[in-house]
Amino acid sequence: MDKFDSTQPAAHRCLDRVVERLCHPDSLNAVWHNSAEGAAMPSRDELREIMNRLAVAIFPGYFGQAQVRLDSLRYHLAANLDSVYQKLREQILRGFCFTCEKQHAVCAPRDSQSKNAALAFMDTLPEIRRLLAGDARAAYEGDPAAQSPEEAVFCYPSLRAMLHHRIAHELHTLDVPMIPRMISEMAHAHTGIDIHPGAAIGEEFFIDHGTGVVIGETCVIGQNCRLYQGVTLGALSFPKKPDGTLIKGISRHPILEDNVTIYAGATILGRVTIGRGAVVGGNMWITEDVPAGARISQEKPYA
Amino acid sequence: MDKFDSTQPAAHRCLDRVVERLCHPDSLNAVWHNSAEGAAMPSRDELREIMNRLAVAIFPGYFGQAQVRLDSLRYHLAANLDSVYQKLREQILRGFCFTCEKQHAVCAPRDSQSKNAALAFMDTLPEIRRLLAGDARAAYEGDPAAQSPEEAVFCYPSLRAMLHHRIAHELHTLDVPMIPRMISEMAHAHTGIDIHPGAAIGEEFFIDHGTGVVIGETCVIGQNCRLYQGVTLGALSFPKKPDGTLIKGISRHPILEDNVTIYAGATILGRVTIGRGAVVGGNMWITEDVPAGARISQEKPYA
Amino acid sequence: MDKFDSTQPAAHRCLDRVVERLCHPDSLNAVWHNSAEGAAMPSRDELREIMNRLAVAIFPGYFGQAQVRLDSLRYHLAANLDSVYQKLREQILRGFCFTCEKQHAVCAPRDSQSKNAALAFMDTLPEIRRLLAGDARAAYEGDPAAQSPEEAVFCYPSLRAMLHHRIAHELHTLDVPMIPRMISEMAHAHTGIDIHPGAAIGEEFFIDHGTGVVIGETCVIGQNCRLYQGVTLGALSFPKKPDGTLIKGISRHPILEDNVTIYAGATILGRVTIGRGAVVGGNMWITEDVPAGARISQEKPYA
Amino acid sequence: MDKFDSTQPAAHRCLDRVVERLCHPDSLNAVWHNSAEGAAMPSRDELREIMNRLAVAIFPGYFGQAQVRLDSLRYHLAANLDSVYQKLREQILRGFCFTCEKQHAVCAPRDSQSKNAALAFMDTLPEIRRLLAGDARAAYEGDPAAQSPEEAVFCYPSLRAMLHHRIAHELHTLDVPMIPRMISEMAHAHTGIDIHPGAAIGEEFFIDHGTGVVIGETCVIGQNCRLYQGVTLGALSFPKKPDGTLIKGISRHPILEDNVTIYAGATILGRVTIGRGAVVGGNMWITEDVPAGARISQEKPYA
Amino acid sequence: MDKFDSTQPAAHRCLDRVVERLCHPDSLNAVWHNSAEGAAMPSRDELREIMNRLAVAIFPGYFGQAQVRLDSLRYHLAANLDSVYQKLREQILRGFCFTCEKQHAVCAPRDSQSKNAALAFMDTLPEIRRLLAGDARAAYEGDPAAQSPEEAVFCYPSLRAMLHHRIAHELHTLDVPMIPRMISEMAHAHTGIDIHPGAAIGEEFFIDHGTGVVIGETCVIGQNCRLYQGVTLGALSFPKKPDGTLIKGISRHPILEDNVTIYAGATILGRVTIGRGAVVGGNMWITEDVPAGARISQEKPYA
Amino acid sequence: MDKFDSTQPAAHRCLDRVVERLCHPDSLNAVWHNSAEGAAMPSRDELREIMNRLAVAIFPGYFGQAQVRLDSLRYHLAANLDSVYQKLREQILRGFCFTCEKQHAVCAPRDSQSKNAALAFMDTLPEIRRLLAGDARAAYEGDPAAQSPEEAVFCYPSLRAMLHHRIAHELHTLDVPMIPRMISEMAHAHTGIDIHPGAAIGEEFFIDHGTGVVIGETCVIGQNCRLYQGVTLGALSFPKKPDGTLIKGISRHPILEDNVTIYAGATILGRVTIGRGAVVGGNMWITEDVPAGARISQEKPYA
Repeated sequence: MDKFDSTQPAAHRCLDRVVERLCHPDSLNAVWHNSAEGAAMPSRDELREIMNRLAVAIFPGYFGQAQVRLDSLRYHLAANLDSVYQKLREQILRGFCFTCEKQHAVCAPRDSQSKNAALAFMDTLPEIRRLLAGDARAAYEGDPAAQSPEEAVFCYPSLRAMLHHRIAHELHTLDVPMIPRMISEMAHAHTGIDIHPGAAIGEEFFIDHGTGVVIGETCVIGQNCRLYQGVTLGALSFPKKPDGTLIKGISRHPILEDNVTIYAGATILGRVTIGRGAVVGGNMWITEDVPAGARISQEKPYA
Repeated sequence: MDKFDSTQPAAHRCLDRVVERLCHPDSLNAVWHNSAEGAAMPSRDELREIMNRLAVAIFPGYFGQAQVRLDSLRYHLAANLDSVYQKLREQILRGFCFTCEKQHAVCAPRDSQSKNAALAFMDTLPEIRRLLAGDARAAYEGDPAAQSPEEAVFCYPSLRAMLHHRIAHELHTLDVPMIPRMISEMAHAHTGIDIHPGAAIGEEFFIDHGTGVVIGETCVIGQNCRLYQGVTLGALSFPKKPDGTLIKGISRHPILEDNVTIYAGATILGRVTIGRGAVVGGNMWITEDVPAGARISQEKPYA
Repeated sequence: MDKFDSTQPAAHRCLDRVVERLCHPDSLNAVWHNSAEGAAMPSRDELREIMNRLAVAIFPGYFGQAQVRLDSLRYHLAANLDSVYQKLREQILRGFCFTCEKQHAVCAPRDSQSKNAALAFMDTLPEIRRLLAGDARAAYEGDPAAQSPEEAVFCYPSLRAMLHHRIAHELHTLDVPMIPRMISEMAHAHTGIDIHPGAAIGEEFFIDHGTGVVIGETCVIGQNCRLYQGVTLGALSFPKKPDGTLIKGISRHPILEDNVTIYAGATILGRVTIGRGAVVGGNMWITEDVPAGARISQEKPYA
Repeated sequence: MDKFDSTQPAAHRCLDRVVERLCHPDSLNAVWHNSAEGAAMPSRDELREIMNRLAVAIFPGYFGQAQVRLDSLRYHLAANLDSVYQKLREQILRGFCFTCEKQHAVCAPRDSQSKNAALAFMDTLPEIRRLLAGDARAAYEGDPAAQSPEEAVFCYPSLRAMLHHRIAHELHTLDVPMIPRMISEMAHAHTGIDIHPGAAIGEEFFIDHGTGVVIGETCVIGQNCRLYQGVTLGALSFPKKPDGTLIKGISRHPILEDNVTIYAGATILGRVTIGRGAVVGGNMWITEDVPAGARISQEKPYA
Repeated sequence: MDKFDSTQPAAHRCLDRVVERLCHPDSLNAVWHNSAEGAAMPSRDELREIMNRLAVAIFPGYFGQAQVRLDSLRYHLAANLDSVYQKLREQILRGFCFTCEKQHAVCAPRDSQSKNAALAFMDTLPEIRRLLAGDARAAYEGDPAAQSPEEAVFCYPSLRAMLHHRIAHELHTLDVPMIPRMISEMAHAHTGIDIHPGAAIGEEFFIDHGTGVVIGETCVIGQNCRLYQGVTLGALSFPKKPDGTLIKGISRHPILEDNVTIYAGATILGRVTIGRGAVVGGNMWITEDVPAGARISQEKPYA
Repeated sequence: MDKFDSTQPAAHRCLDRVVERLCHPDSLNAVWHNSAEGAAMPSRDELREIMNRLAVAIFPGYFGQAQVRLDSLRYHLAANLDSVYQKLREQILRGFCFTCEKQHAVCAPRDSQSKNAALAFMDTLPEIRRLLAGDARAAYEGDPAAQSPEEAVFCYPSLRAMLHHRIAHELHTLDVPMIPRMISEMAHAHTGIDIHPGAAIGEEFFIDHGTGVVIGETCVIGQNCRLYQGVTLGALSFPKKPDGTLIKGISRHPILEDNVTIYAGATILGRVTIGRGAVVGGNMWITEDVPAGARISQEKPYA
């Protein structure tokens, strides 16, 4: 019959060929990942849902429903947190399976490990809220354009970045693989602020504007510190093993003591210490310790 | 009955405890906001919807439906703008209630104030479109990679940032609280360009690439200016009151006269004036006035 | 009847007036675009769908469904790619019509041109996957915080940026207008990394953190190069024609030979060559060639 | 300009004319409803949401999430019921306003009346569940094709109809206007079973197949009755007032005592009583009392 | 490689075989339809959207948004009707193409025919609304359980059925193929009332309960008639052509003059006339004319 | 603090009480179902998705995308059927677990049983399509109002009912529990036609209008039969066991030989045989065999 004649044979042949090549082990092999026990991979969509639910739990009214009634808050909070717990436990398990080396072995402990990590995380939520409320206060106090701490929760990328970081950091501390990094990267995509889940950050922390800020894995930041856009707290060099591969996990990022301020575009590299109350000027390039109370800035008169 | 035995008592006890603590006034108090008259808080989702509708109204075909028929444009525009007006009026009211100090008093004028602000804003839409069409022309003329002004509307973060800014700035001028800042921050998240709604920006403005640009609250920018990625127009210092709190609202950001160009990564701080036609080179650090017509750049030979 | 009395005449008059002005040719003309033959404009939503489907085709399991079964992968891949082909062909056609100067003429070849470009693109998918698998390896090898190449696919903005770039670059090479730029800008909005579709980038490329990176239209980058956040590979000047308009399309961006590393915040401008294996330090400002193997960095002790 | 020429003037003129006529008071007046105080009308979508949530509360696992964990059931049930209460209270208020005759007066008691009705309804939910569990048992016991009471909950239109009826009847008993009827009609549309919310139906009630069943407003049905498809329990005549309008609200439908069975297509009209344990055969036409224990059927041999 | 071993070869072989057979012309041929010029088929989803929009246009507030403001009704109505017109024109075109016998010929008039039919239909909307308002009045006046005409619009399947019928009938009158039938069937699925689009139905028509009512293609119904559930107005016999195929399109269904009432379950077959004011009792079987004013009912005492 | 005062204590106490009672084992027990091994229950939403996908596979273009291209049909069909297979296998497993009596035992064979049943079902799809194409032809040939067999697929409830039935019947034949009944009931809700999955129905079957039709579990229907609305093919009596419970599964419904026609509202009860070519008139009540070729109808002149 005429109607069953193929009308785009060239397109067909092309698509068939592409499918063939993309399914060939040589091609597939390079991008295929086998989780332990054939577990599903961690899911971006589920993590996004988890983060949205946690934002609602921590800052009711600012996220989720715009109107919250105190008298029934408890009902909805309990249901919300139970869902978070179930979902998080599943994603943590997928994280463990993703990175597990015993690809095909049965590995029973992983499930209870996931449950325990999820519960331990849930237990830190009140403390996470306390810290984030402090971060909102710091934003208000540090920015002349801010009208109230509440405005900071609503509008400031710093609060979004810290919401993700303080959650990701707890999961990182619990040795959960993959998931903390995915949570951090969500905030990075949203705010341009890239904080590694490993970084330890003290109370009342504020990043103004924030785009381009990088805070490395082994940073230690004291209380009441403030950064501006484009600040890098990075590593100076990457020691390698004799075989030429990088040594992973050594302390290689700066320490900021309490009350340190770093202005826009400054770069601080290596395991240096910026002493208590020091102020680092914009665009500075720092690879050595800065004493407590110092105020350093560049002299860069134009030609 | 067996089936009603609790199977995860530990998880239960944990979640119950967390709910208890998150509902405790000591914890809730730190993040709870009472709007005047128990009004709902401003809604991110509604503001996103308003911005999407305004983008469609201003640039028909580029946003929303890809195919627009001129003959029925008027029908859909009228319905769209009526929806924008209703929604915006509601969000403006929420903004007023959010920041109102008379927490529990009845405050009748707020509703008509919201209506008037919303109407006054609607009235500026034709002018906003005119300005944005100029910004698109400036993008085309300023970027050798641009093929047409239309491409700029479709692809350039500068246009997205200015769409939000010119709208947020009108609302800021009408003394609407919270809402302008939330609109600006949407563009910041999308483009990495952070323009405070207070900044006054002249015609034919263009920011190339844009990531990391910061334009402060009291900036004044003339016609036909151009910025590149990573430029900061910021404040040099934050004067404090005797009690140590920041003084808010004083003019503390740069003035750019007409035809000024600032290359990537330059930082200009304080209430300085960059004179008409001046060109500031990349990575420059400027804290003093620059005369009209000057071309300043760094000498930074490498070692 | 009472109920049909108008209750908001002022609001009405205002909205009617705004509609009138926005529909007036003087206003509409500035933002109206006529595609050839009245074709619809390219659609952001369709391009987003196309990119999501391509991500699933290239990295099954990482994007889309979290669990993929090898045995039926082929079925879903074929259906997915057929949809991509149909949708892409349509968007390419819209791109051609958008930029076509013969506004009202019938232009039959455009349709087969779109089909051919779409098929030619589909044919490059296996090669695009091969290159992206190499980029994932480079991320793992270059970042001490990375645990595995798989983690890079999941979490690293560099991979997202390169996914978009390698696709956009193929379409750019096929002379498809508009579409490549829109695809690039999606990645820019997501990652803060702005790579022009014209840039030619070699194998095993990695950008760490990435926010603020700009790679210009005529850049040529060799194998195994690595950039950090805030690096600009830009143009030094924009030659103009006698009539004052910019000359478009000339080679004006840097060349990086193989194995080059550029640290955070460095700016390299103009058609200069960074020689094989060279290392450019953070915040460097380069406008001249750098010899192969050189290690250049600034001396910037603080005052 | 050419492009602003109208291309479909006839269509325009037509649509403008239709809009004009549909907005003319003569046309609008016939379909316009003014609720008291300008309240919104009851919302079908909200009622559908309420019914879905109630189905989940009453039959966990059968509706909503397919997997329910006993240990956290309480959390989700509480949140669910709070949402039901809030939504139902709002719809009840709209029902009162819809039917209120004091069109423009302020009518404060209506709000607390709605709250009280909503709470009184919530209080009946455990009893509603008990009755529906009995209806499921009756379905299993009465139908040789049923495998278990659970199957009845999953698959039987009778259960869907009774779920709606038992809820609508409680609201009807609470003198809530409009809403019960809308809830009944949802079930009618779904099952073809039309039960007026006013009907009083005893325990363990079952309707097999159900399509075409009509049960009138003032029916009284005892325990353990069973109907088949196409049964009508209707009114025989509609007494009129002297002015010719119908008298509303008088008892005009049948009474079924306990253990009555009515086979398919039977019609029973008027305030007759079908005595305890009676069986009415298919297609019977009954307008008089039937004694207890009677088994009546037609003799209708074909010609 | 182990991981690329197929794990479900039996399932594969089965699915491959099923695909093969379903794509084989012998199978496909029996269900494949070629519209003229390869046009898309009519779309259920689009027709559902059209009907939803028409319901909003005719009964504002009852359908769509629960709160409608009179002052901006005109804006939204105009936009809504323009969308209806565009969508309906497209579906009418698809209907013409679906039934066109010149399968592969170009058939230019079809497009303007569709446009004209769509416009002619739009022009009848005010009349359709007038008729439906009459149908709502009839429902209120005819049912002792009804509280107001408004309740009828909200809850009565009769109104839903007539909304679809009066629209479908206009399209049928305009000789639009397929679409009217699809619109009728939507109402049939929702209400159990099956009215063929060809039936001509007078003003103030009401069907109580409605499930199981069938009104045939060539019925003619006068003003102020009323039916109950299960009434059939059908054909008595289907004359065949000499070749044994049915003769289509001859008048073969009943005529009801004004003020006729037909009680539940009655069946009236053939081109008979039920005279003005006649009342036909429940379950009656009528195949001959009934004189004006007659009241006929069965004598069916039980045995 | 004032803001934490409870404002609706009565409502709270009420909701708390309701939650308490609904979670009490006495209440929960009556509606709680424990599937074997804690498996999830069958999901209506998943079954709806499966049925939608099967409709697309069997009648491409009529369901799903309105435009299907022959050349890539195979790609999408394969992906679609693989999804159907996976989803169906899961639902079949849930059906087995739902009805399994060994509530807590591990029951390994159930999984392979589900896989086998799903595969066996998939294998019947070409035959199911062939039968449904025959049913469409029968609709066209039997209804003078039908314009083409294609119209029947688009608009006729009979086709929708048979689509579900022929699928449900295959699953019933494979001894799959629960799922066939849920699939049938979907069609019943949509069309008012209630066919038990157990009924065996021959080729070229057509039900006109259909509302109220009931076809019982053990019916056997030959080729080329036709029913009208309101026909019941039911059971006459339900034999009970000595203990008073119903005997399930015995043959108790009518047999229709080939070419039988049953007009509207007829009721046929018990294991009677309607002989080849017989015609049963409307509203007939049949409880005995009807010989082949007989034409029986009632004599019911009105009084």
